[in-house]
Amino acid sequence: MKKAVVLLSGGLDSAVALYLAQSQGFDVHAISFDYGQRHNRELEAAKSIAKKVKVSNHQIVTLKLDKWGGSSLTDSKLEVEDGNVERTDIPVTYVPARNMVFLSVAASLAEAIGAQDIFIGVSQVDYSGYVDCRQEFIDGMEKAINLGTVMGAEKNQPIKIHAPFVNKTKAEEIKLGEELGVDFGLTWSCYRGGDKPCGTCDSCLLRAKAFAEAGVIDTSL
Amino acid sequence: MKKAVVLLSGGLDSAVALYLAQSQGFDVHAISFDYGQRHNRELEAAKSIAKKVKVSNHQIVTLKLDKWGGSSLTDSKLEVEDGNVERTDIPVTYVPARNMVFLSVAASLAEAIGAQDIFIGVSQVDYSGYVDCRQEFIDGMEKAINLGTVMGAEKNQPIKIHAPFVNKTKAEEIKLGEELGVDFGLTWSCYRGGDKPCGTCDSCLLRAKAFAEAGVIDTSL
Repeated sequence: MKKAVVLLSGGLDSAVALYLAQSQGFDVHAISFDYGQRHNRELEAAKSIAKKVKVSNHQIVTLKLDKWGGSSLTDSKLEVEDGNVERTDIPVTYVPARNMVFLSVAASLAEAIGAQDIFIGVSQVDYSGYVDCRQEFIDGMEKAINLGTVMGAEKNQPIKIHAPFVNKTKAEEIKLGEELGVDFGLTWSCYRGGDKPCGTCDSCLLRAKAFAEAGVIDTSL
Repeated sequence: MKKAVVLLSGGLDSAVALYLAQSQGFDVHAISFDYGQRHNRELEAAKSIAKKVKVSNHQIVTLKLDKWGGSSLTDSKLEVEDGNVERTDIPVTYVPARNMVFLSVAASLAEAIGAQDIFIGVSQVDYSGYVDCRQEFIDGMEKAINLGTVMGAEKNQPIKIHAPFVNKTKAEEIKLGEELGVDFGLTWSCYRGGDKPCGTCDSCLLRAKAFAEAGVIDTSL
């Protein structure tokens, strides 16, 4: 079986990406980050999902991006705002260079275990306006990975970044997740990270809207 | 003063890069990584250098790449080989995707503090054969950074990666370091990381050869 590294936050998107990778026959090595996020509750979700689908390996990497903050998710002095799905500016929940950091560390793991495939559950359709969720960033990162690793630059074993939902709506992704048997009840999206989802942050709003559009019950509520 | 993030390993190259950034008028924010390296002795060197030149800030980031090893620097089961400066294959000291990870985290810090400049002391001339020390990787990474950060992709404040030694020999770099007043005695290069440099690993050999070529005394010995 070919190995794949799957970025698993514990949220909806990455859970569907993980099930998808398994359905495509990959031997999944999941990786999650304890980056000082306010909602580190999501790491418990990541562990539950990894356990449920019996991944070969689940790495939880500590990398404290909250040392310099720059985001309401990593700086306790900033508030998580109530969400607005119509907004067009960059929200304060944006974490500087987060997906670049995650993909770089995933590339390091991929090269160490000989995996040529990395999965990430980003979408550029109905998302929070994060620049690092866009196709052109994913393409740029894949190029950089193949210039900066021995597998890509010397051994002719290029690493591919799979972003299967990059041009899908979240509703489409949820329908796919339902077909794949994703246990949505194990996933966690709320940025505020309390005992129960707040229902009013960007992430809760996008999730609720997408489940409604997909006509699927969100079993996490 | 414009801020710059300088990757500071504690070795020779990054020390010269740091002095160079200061000489160019940058307000230096240094960043070092505790990545599980065998020679974490270099972090003490990094602290000494940062203190000596009075940087504005020095972040030491813990990110345990030794969780998956893949290198004799991060896997205690592998030996650091004696060096051979004529070799052309990839040595076992190569750490998967290390410079990509370091540059990504540096980009996160840069964006959080509003710095448009990142310095890295890599060279593709007389080096250990690491793919992530080459100009084309640095160029690819700079593109990815500017696609994946708000500064680069939205605000028209592109981030530049300075690799001032990428086309210089280590001897040229040492001569420049001498002009800049670098305290070579504070730097640490040995991969084996004992009390004193071993003198026989790749890193010690490259260093000794370069000081000899430059006609400069290595005050660390």
